[in-house]
Amino acid sequence: MSTPSGPIAAVIERLRSALPHSQVLTDPAQLASYDCDGLLVHRVRPAVVALTDDAEQVRAAVQACADLDVPFVARGSGTGLSGGALPHADGVLIVMSGFREIKEISAADHRAVVDPGVINLSVTQASSPEGYYFAPDPSSQQICSIGGNVAENSGGAHCLKYGFTSNHVLAAEVVMPDGSAVRLGQRAPDAPGYDLLGAFVGSEGTLGVTTEVTVKLLRSAESVQTFLAGFESTDAAGAATSAIIAAGIVPAAIEMMDALAIEAAEAAVACNYPARAGAVLVVELDGPTVEVEAESLAAQQMCRDAGAFEIRLAADAEERAAIWRGRKSAFAAVGRISPDYIVQDGVIPRTKLSEVLHRMGELAAEKGVRVANVFHAGDGNLHPLVLFDGGVPGESERAEEVSGAILDLCLEHGGSITGEHGVGFDKAKHMPKMFTEVDLDTMQRVRCAFDPHGLSNPGKIYPTPRLCGEVPRKRSANDPNPYEGKAEIF
Amino acid sequence: MSTPSGPIAAVIERLRSALPHSQVLTDPAQLASYDCDGLLVHRVRPAVVALTDDAEQVRAAVQACADLDVPFVARGSGTGLSGGALPHADGVLIVMSGFREIKEISAADHRAVVDPGVINLSVTQASSPEGYYFAPDPSSQQICSIGGNVAENSGGAHCLKYGFTSNHVLAAEVVMPDGSAVRLGQRAPDAPGYDLLGAFVGSEGTLGVTTEVTVKLLRSAESVQTFLAGFESTDAAGAATSAIIAAGIVPAAIEMMDALAIEAAEAAVACNYPARAGAVLVVELDGPTVEVEAESLAAQQMCRDAGAFEIRLAADAEERAAIWRGRKSAFAAVGRISPDYIVQDGVIPRTKLSEVLHRMGELAAEKGVRVANVFHAGDGNLHPLVLFDGGVPGESERAEEVSGAILDLCLEHGGSITGEHGVGFDKAKHMPKMFTEVDLDTMQRVRCAFDPHGLSNPGKIYPTPRLCGEVPRKRSANDPNPYEGKAEIF
Repeated sequence: MSTPSGPIAAVIERLRSALPHSQVLTDPAQLASYDCDGLLVHRVRPAVVALTDDAEQVRAAVQACADLDVPFVARGSGTGLSGGALPHADGVLIVMSGFREIKEISAADHRAVVDPGVINLSVTQASSPEGYYFAPDPSSQQICSIGGNVAENSGGAHCLKYGFTSNHVLAAEVVMPDGSAVRLGQRAPDAPGYDLLGAFVGSEGTLGVTTEVTVKLLRSAESVQTFLAGFESTDAAGAATSAIIAAGIVPAAIEMMDALAIEAAEAAVACNYPARAGAVLVVELDGPTVEVEAESLAAQQMCRDAGAFEIRLAADAEERAAIWRGRKSAFAAVGRISPDYIVQDGVIPRTKLSEVLHRMGELAAEKGVRVANVFHAGDGNLHPLVLFDGGVPGESERAEEVSGAILDLCLEHGGSITGEHGVGFDKAKHMPKMFTEVDLDTMQRVRCAFDPHGLSNPGKIYPTPRLCGEVPRKRSANDPNPYEGKAEIF
Repeated sequence: MSTPSGPIAAVIERLRSALPHSQVLTDPAQLASYDCDGLLVHRVRPAVVALTDDAEQVRAAVQACADLDVPFVARGSGTGLSGGALPHADGVLIVMSGFREIKEISAADHRAVVDPGVINLSVTQASSPEGYYFAPDPSSQQICSIGGNVAENSGGAHCLKYGFTSNHVLAAEVVMPDGSAVRLGQRAPDAPGYDLLGAFVGSEGTLGVTTEVTVKLLRSAESVQTFLAGFESTDAAGAATSAIIAAGIVPAAIEMMDALAIEAAEAAVACNYPARAGAVLVVELDGPTVEVEAESLAAQQMCRDAGAFEIRLAADAEERAAIWRGRKSAFAAVGRISPDYIVQDGVIPRTKLSEVLHRMGELAAEKGVRVANVFHAGDGNLHPLVLFDGGVPGESERAEEVSGAILDLCLEHGGSITGEHGVGFDKAKHMPKMFTEVDLDTMQRVRCAFDPHGLSNPGKIYPTPRLCGEVPRKRSANDPNPYEGKAEIF
């Protein structure tokens, strides 16, 4: 590696004057451990890593980049699955994981104020003594950061009932790509002016970097019931899911696993799911005890009516954890039955579940790869795991093909190329399948409004960066205040 | 009135070629009936009114304005309370109230697709046979339009539990201020790319005009219970509200009225609320029967514990309607006890309710005007009615002063200048009290991205329009695709 020169050398100098020297990494061996996020398949070594632990350091890093026209990428815990935190080879990676103080837990008005590096689960741990919790629960919640959740608009098993991160973030302090600090949103509901917080949440780092997040806390449910239902097929499990939702019951979660996913979980954590099940559902209901008990009974009956041959209701927290263990281990467990795999993330209307799963099975058979399915059945968010052996020539290419074809399948059925993992670097190429030129241009206009120089996480979400100047900006000759002297008070 | 000339004459010609002649109004007498919205105090006669009844007509009208650099204002039913649909004297008023077909009610996936002029209540009426309803319920719901709800991000008595319009809109077709058509959002949850729909909802017509709205339908609750509780003071009613929320109960609505508001409602509709009450609460709970019954009993007990001297539980739909009659008539009813009044709209943290009401009482006494309070107590959204007699010299000015001071009071207590009526023309001057220069600049950047010529509802929301060119737009020399040849697939 050559010694940095030009703008990067100048940025490094600026970073060293703003941060302790030990927090500015340029040693290639150190940089190597930041070359990817949880997606692993794409790797780029950044030019420099800045380990920040407060807002001032983040602001200084962004300001240095803005002044010297150097791109930057913010990274939380690096657990993202779409390459959203993939570094820029000629840029700064701003690592926020050390920037993690919980500033305020205010039970009375259901609010918490946290640094972006705070771990998702820590918010719940800090508020549970007062009877509250933070609802978004991505499966990485023990390690992922709130800042990353905001960037990716993270979901989780319980977003069927409670919504995504955007439903739980009330305000954010943001460093804009030009270095200025701005506050988006407010503690009270429905702030006047444009809801730019809504646009910022899920913008995957392309509109700036958050330095403080105000989130909503929910009251812990009085009661929780979780049951596992074994079915002969995914069709039967899908029919049970539809029946539950159609009855107006909104479970906290309805998760489905197919036979191959069950086999993997069994191999990894011996979860002891019903033998020979073609599919299982994990159904969780929460709320007031009287409601939970009535709805749980009704949902169990619907499962039986749809053909469930075994139902296990967790009698206590330990049994509940045992049921969840199989589901939560599923992604990692696939490693026990396949040397390599791709985690896909797509959405379909719930009503198309059966049809899409069948087509997916046909696709996999055609290409000679196996697909395990683990997904949020309640909201049609699929997570197919495409298994392959990278050591067998041609297999990784076939797996990639199947993985891409699954997204096309989602789109054909009126769905989406991502449910909760984001577009990042990985899926930018698929965006034109979902959006028209005008739709993408409209997003680009907003990108240019926030980041005219294209410095903030460039190359993510959008496939073909355009010159910001292409958007016409002629100013009309209108009166700056069209009401002056014309409006009357009666 | 002189014959139109210049760009307006050209726009009128374009409108007449795109719309039936009877739908292009230029007669001053006809124009006069469109000179204000529900706020009434500000009046501006538009240069021309275009009565549209389909998307193509709206698009043609906007395109004509864009081509000829003429401002336009879209108007639904004209029930807004912040002057958001106040016309532009040199512009086109695009009236959407005739553009009102319900295109699709899809119970299976809880969706409806409607034209923007569709009346709010019509969506519920169309979906109720299948057991569904549209949740946002502004008090004007029998007449206000979905397009107006989207523009203002309307709330209602039940948004405590169900959220604002933005929580119930999934997608919108939008004509951008340059005439291009764009689709924001999607039917499935969590669309990739920026959530521009979130920014569009509540942008009060400044980012374009919607021509189709896809909304979420909710399953009608199995059970509803409504009770009225009489208290000696607003303090006691406020304490009951806090106790209910703190217990984790989320009623569909908790509405408070103070003595003066009760007096007005009594005079207008003889609602027979508890005699001598210093305040009443209307509490409504909905959901599964078992939950509603248990929570209603608990909430009634909390009211008693806080000092309620009378509680009336509605035994049937008729009694429920009788309880709501007083609350729903309150705004109009104030006309029975005062020749004139200002409806204010502000938000405070629920925990500050008592303090703010006392300060408000002092303010009113100092200025010698009366203030009646009707509000969504559950989420701290106040609707003070400042009563005055426009015939008494100086009274309207004193009322205006009190009305403005109430907003300052909200801000001092960490609240907001509007809860659900929007900023519109009326409150634009207050925006700098809530937002820093940088915050406002950031919103302005987005405004310029959508509407660089400042044609779409100019003069609303933002106090000081700036030249869009003032935002720097230098393009960096970065590689357009920073990953080309650098990212590897492992």
